[in-house]
Amino acid sequence: MSFPHAKRPALDGLFKPTSIAIMGASSRSAWAKTVLGNLRAGGYGGEVRLVGRRVETVFGLPTVAAMADLDIVPDVAFILVRAEFVLGALKEAADFGVTRFVVLAAGFGEAGTEGKTLEHEISEYCRERGLVLLGPNNMGFVNFSGRVFGFGLSVPETPVGGISLVSQSGALAYQMIAHMPTRLVGLDHVITVGNEAVLDVAACIDYLIDQDSTKVICLYVHAIRSPLEFATACRRAALAGKPVIVFKAGFGEQSARAAVAHTGGLVGDDRIIEAVLQQVGAVRCTSLEDLVTTAALFEGYGELPGVRAAVVTGAGSACEVFTDRADRLGLDLPTINEETADALRAAGLPTFATAQNPLDVTAAVTIDAKEILPELARILADDPSVDILITQGIGLATPTYLNPDRRGLAEAHLRLAASTSKPVLAFADMAMNADPADMELRLELGTPPVIESIDRGLEALHALDRWSQRRRQLLNEGELSTDTPEITIPDDRRWSEATARQVLSQFGVPIAPSTLVTSVDDIGKVSAAYGFPLVAKICSPEIVHKSDIGGVILNIRDEEEARAAFKTLTERAREHHPDARIEGVLLGPMRPPGVELIMGVTRDSEWGLVLALGLGGVWVEVLEDVALRPLPVSRHDVSEMLSELRAAPLLDGARGTEPADREAIADAVLSFAGAAWALREAGLEAMESNPVVVRGADVEALDVLVIFAQPPPMVA
Amino acid sequence: MSFPHAKRPALDGLFKPTSIAIMGASSRSAWAKTVLGNLRAGGYGGEVRLVGRRVETVFGLPTVAAMADLDIVPDVAFILVRAEFVLGALKEAADFGVTRFVVLAAGFGEAGTEGKTLEHEISEYCRERGLVLLGPNNMGFVNFSGRVFGFGLSVPETPVGGISLVSQSGALAYQMIAHMPTRLVGLDHVITVGNEAVLDVAACIDYLIDQDSTKVICLYVHAIRSPLEFATACRRAALAGKPVIVFKAGFGEQSARAAVAHTGGLVGDDRIIEAVLQQVGAVRCTSLEDLVTTAALFEGYGELPGVRAAVVTGAGSACEVFTDRADRLGLDLPTINEETADALRAAGLPTFATAQNPLDVTAAVTIDAKEILPELARILADDPSVDILITQGIGLATPTYLNPDRRGLAEAHLRLAASTSKPVLAFADMAMNADPADMELRLELGTPPVIESIDRGLEALHALDRWSQRRRQLLNEGELSTDTPEITIPDDRRWSEATARQVLSQFGVPIAPSTLVTSVDDIGKVSAAYGFPLVAKICSPEIVHKSDIGGVILNIRDEEEARAAFKTLTERAREHHPDARIEGVLLGPMRPPGVELIMGVTRDSEWGLVLALGLGGVWVEVLEDVALRPLPVSRHDVSEMLSELRAAPLLDGARGTEPADREAIADAVLSFAGAAWALREAGLEAMESNPVVVRGADVEALDVLVIFAQPPPMVA
Repeated sequence: MSFPHAKRPALDGLFKPTSIAIMGASSRSAWAKTVLGNLRAGGYGGEVRLVGRRVETVFGLPTVAAMADLDIVPDVAFILVRAEFVLGALKEAADFGVTRFVVLAAGFGEAGTEGKTLEHEISEYCRERGLVLLGPNNMGFVNFSGRVFGFGLSVPETPVGGISLVSQSGALAYQMIAHMPTRLVGLDHVITVGNEAVLDVAACIDYLIDQDSTKVICLYVHAIRSPLEFATACRRAALAGKPVIVFKAGFGEQSARAAVAHTGGLVGDDRIIEAVLQQVGAVRCTSLEDLVTTAALFEGYGELPGVRAAVVTGAGSACEVFTDRADRLGLDLPTINEETADALRAAGLPTFATAQNPLDVTAAVTIDAKEILPELARILADDPSVDILITQGIGLATPTYLNPDRRGLAEAHLRLAASTSKPVLAFADMAMNADPADMELRLELGTPPVIESIDRGLEALHALDRWSQRRRQLLNEGELSTDTPEITIPDDRRWSEATARQVLSQFGVPIAPSTLVTSVDDIGKVSAAYGFPLVAKICSPEIVHKSDIGGVILNIRDEEEARAAFKTLTERAREHHPDARIEGVLLGPMRPPGVELIMGVTRDSEWGLVLALGLGGVWVEVLEDVALRPLPVSRHDVSEMLSELRAAPLLDGARGTEPADREAIADAVLSFAGAAWALREAGLEAMESNPVVVRGADVEALDVLVIFAQPPPMVA
Repeated sequence: MSFPHAKRPALDGLFKPTSIAIMGASSRSAWAKTVLGNLRAGGYGGEVRLVGRRVETVFGLPTVAAMADLDIVPDVAFILVRAEFVLGALKEAADFGVTRFVVLAAGFGEAGTEGKTLEHEISEYCRERGLVLLGPNNMGFVNFSGRVFGFGLSVPETPVGGISLVSQSGALAYQMIAHMPTRLVGLDHVITVGNEAVLDVAACIDYLIDQDSTKVICLYVHAIRSPLEFATACRRAALAGKPVIVFKAGFGEQSARAAVAHTGGLVGDDRIIEAVLQQVGAVRCTSLEDLVTTAALFEGYGELPGVRAAVVTGAGSACEVFTDRADRLGLDLPTINEETADALRAAGLPTFATAQNPLDVTAAVTIDAKEILPELARILADDPSVDILITQGIGLATPTYLNPDRRGLAEAHLRLAASTSKPVLAFADMAMNADPADMELRLELGTPPVIESIDRGLEALHALDRWSQRRRQLLNEGELSTDTPEITIPDDRRWSEATARQVLSQFGVPIAPSTLVTSVDDIGKVSAAYGFPLVAKICSPEIVHKSDIGGVILNIRDEEEARAAFKTLTERAREHHPDARIEGVLLGPMRPPGVELIMGVTRDSEWGLVLALGLGGVWVEVLEDVALRPLPVSRHDVSEMLSELRAAPLLDGARGTEPADREAIADAVLSFAGAAWALREAGLEAMESNPVVVRGADVEALDVLVIFAQPPPMVA
């Protein structure tokens, strides 16, 4: 369930409160001790009040027995009691006027029927009263920049930076807090959402988009509980220029098991998630380390002007690793021009080195002639084909054991960055073992972060480049038009192919011609109009899988065969489905072969209507080579879907067929998707056209099927 | 070029010399200073002598002007002079009786024509005199266990362990020396081979296999210069139980460029390398970090009894990450039995935790009830379905900021390991930031290494599991039989299809029947024997691509059509290839459809004859879905090749076809491969059968083509 956007300002009071009450405070409560200790260690500047059963002094602060005894109405109440007492405490505080809560206790939705009931009561209560609640089954939050350490595990000394994290796992959030400084990056907000009884991930993303201190939003999620709000928030973040970087856990069968034990969330289909994240302009990382590196890259360097990278190193092996990895990712390491090459040689590049990109300045420079290095790097960066410069051996990327002069290194990086208009990225050569003191230096001098390893760094660069492209696309396309033409939709929600053809045609879906023949006497006229060969199909709303009963006859060569086919088809239909309404026989011309596409829409329980696009035959059946996008989709989405298909070369005529006109395909798919979108409220369950035959710019659906949600039909 | 195996013992004198001479020693030589400094810092126990142009005292040692002035004949001479002086120094030392050399200078094969000539002279000289030489264009070697630091860059304090590295890059080797201790693993030998003028990677592998101190052999290579020796050495290492773990740089077009500038080595085809490494039982890693983790895993834990892993952590999120990654890799995290679950609960697993694998003991245990953790871990490990236990939160995998009691952690790991018969692996939760002091503790207490991160750790586990399987396979299959039947091979090396059919049939390749018809008068008899429909193909040694000239006619329905086909085919052949020898027309029965395979053999300039196997149609043409292996191949190789194909489900009847008999396919492929092997010395260039039609156990090549190396034919 989602927190209504209209109440977004309320979150400021949650994450930046001027006063906090801790309920369940006692000298024996480890939680109270930890939260209080964190607030103090973090330098919380607001008021803190304690409410506990026994009136005592807890860690130097007095407790009161009840909320009503407090001198102020706190902005937030941390409810640190066991699950069964949470609702009572909530009501007590709400009656006193508190509107924002943090509940840490486990034992709710993740813990069986009883817990689910408890959680439902809490969320219903909050909804009715318009209350904000973070949790339960979480660890609270830390607002590093705002100095509010409202966290259930002892927060270590952590530098402040522009990376925020929203996590469904408290343990993971804690791990990240501890881990980030060792990667020389700093944090802004860390918010653990637990079971999301009220506040969900989407609401937190929305809040973070509005915080100037947050530059990147990282997510650790195993279940996306409010799909549409999630998608909207991600899209808004992309438009706002703040990447949402997602680590999604729990995508397999075994995962589902572990996730259930953890928070009771439903685990969605991984391929749909992938499609959703691409569509909404989020970045997906498949390892936590990649999440950190990608976030660090953006936090430190912002949106890059491009990713055509020049690379300068002191080792040929590093050049090779850079080049290999760039090749794999399709990143461009541009060829430098002759002037740049000449300038490099003139500036002192050794004669036995090659003036090229990636540039190996050789050990001769890195050991004996260090002072030349920044000049060589600058010259390389200034080549017109270059967007960014990646360096090794400059700045804090250099390990301490190789150069203990950390300040000198950091300043050299800054000098180099100042000497060129191109961003200068410092890559560590291998998995980093960072000196924690470097982080202080970074914050003091404003040095950009070190990007961990060639592999992870280029992967991150590639991910952010895709994000930038998608962001530009989203900025261009604006709101997707979801206008639908005024078309009358038949009331009866069980459509034969004839009905489906008639409706979809009105939406502009190109469908191969055919005529519904209801009497054998009409065959002469219809077949004369089309010419031979013909195809005949039984037409009945109850017969969905025609081929299974021999309900399709191909290659009808003359009128006599057509009459026979009519008879055969109606007989077969009556035999297999005696109760089916037989509307007649669809008669149409056989079409020449071409590339065969499949387009379909299905209703996903989480994401609603999802469009699927693929090529026929082995592609779908064996390779499961299908591109997915939730509806509605833009023309760009469709063109992206076509490019994602491994079978894409076939569209371009890879097997000697005529190259397909991708725009014509997009027209057909968009009409099809538009029809599905228009039918969504009528209860569309599935829609499919298989095959759609493509010959150049000629795109024709040979078959259409539309199914609405309803009790199972009597006959299948 | 390869170092002859008979001289392998000579390498002991190179890498474990009792005396070393440094040629080119002078007080102004940075190299001499560094190598001498390294030898001293490493505690070299043998004799060191200096030879330099001027008689002086260099770093406290006297120099002599010429080799002949030395009091001993050193085991090794380090030649530290510039490229143009190397050959002279080499001859001087060889004349004095020195037989082993290290040459660091660049400016040889990697540096243009002149350098190539110099290198050739050196290698020829060494070959004639039976000398051993490491380099040139390298950094020398470090024998950590034997305390011989013969290296051209200053070697930092490095703990000794069982990992050896052979590297074509000196810079990379240096980086690894510096990096390994930060991952808490130690090194045995680091050998940089440079241009391999004499000693190649294969010879170094061979040497390391024989060193008890080496448990794992890591390679950094961009070109494999002696493919067959390399393959033999890798296979020997696998049989000896020492994994060869390979990082191969330079696999793309851009890479080739960087590699040429670096050592002038030829860059092979990446897909063949992949196949070779699999075949010879080597492990391939695609990142340097994975190389280190995989090596660390084996060095620390040896060959594992299996990889069915139980996982114990304190966080549900870690369980999810473990489960997801294991799913992706196909690693089994077995379900524990009821007794184990009961025992876990009885031992104090909190009631709100789930007794399952992966096991989240929850924060309640990791924070409040730490002492229960080892017992829970032991119980989990003892489950009968479990081969190994992976722990987080025990041992040095725990970051220092979470637990500064390093000794206590290390001892806890050892206690846990002693409590169960299963190997207990300690995984760091995320990319490690190791405390260097931990390494000393590891060496002192004999604690196993920490495996870096869930992702890399499981990847390494998976790689070593595949290695173990391949090793068992190699141990079983022994030497591949390369016996070939006594078959007369026609002298003329330009074969028509009829000749190819006749020869390959004798090797047992199953080929669909056909008869060479040389006169139209024979058609009646032949077609009567086969029955209709028939297929007719023109048969000429000069017409390789029959279809291009309409040289194949299908679906011949009667004798009249057959006669017409004969006439048409011979006319077309004469028209398009007036000079071709027309042997006649191949007439055979049309075969029913089935799954279509392609099998082929091509000669690779590096690896010799390579077998390729794939499925017809889009699989090969669009997806390039082909499995490769250098010849000769075993039955197991072939069965592995079939499994590697993405199209493999089609063999099992995925599209409604009859499931193919993989053994029958393997029979056909082995016959085909055996024929190619037998023809290799006759100059076989390529051999192909396309399609091979498979219907259940019925496997038939419909077409065969055999091409030998020779001047291009007059007609194509």
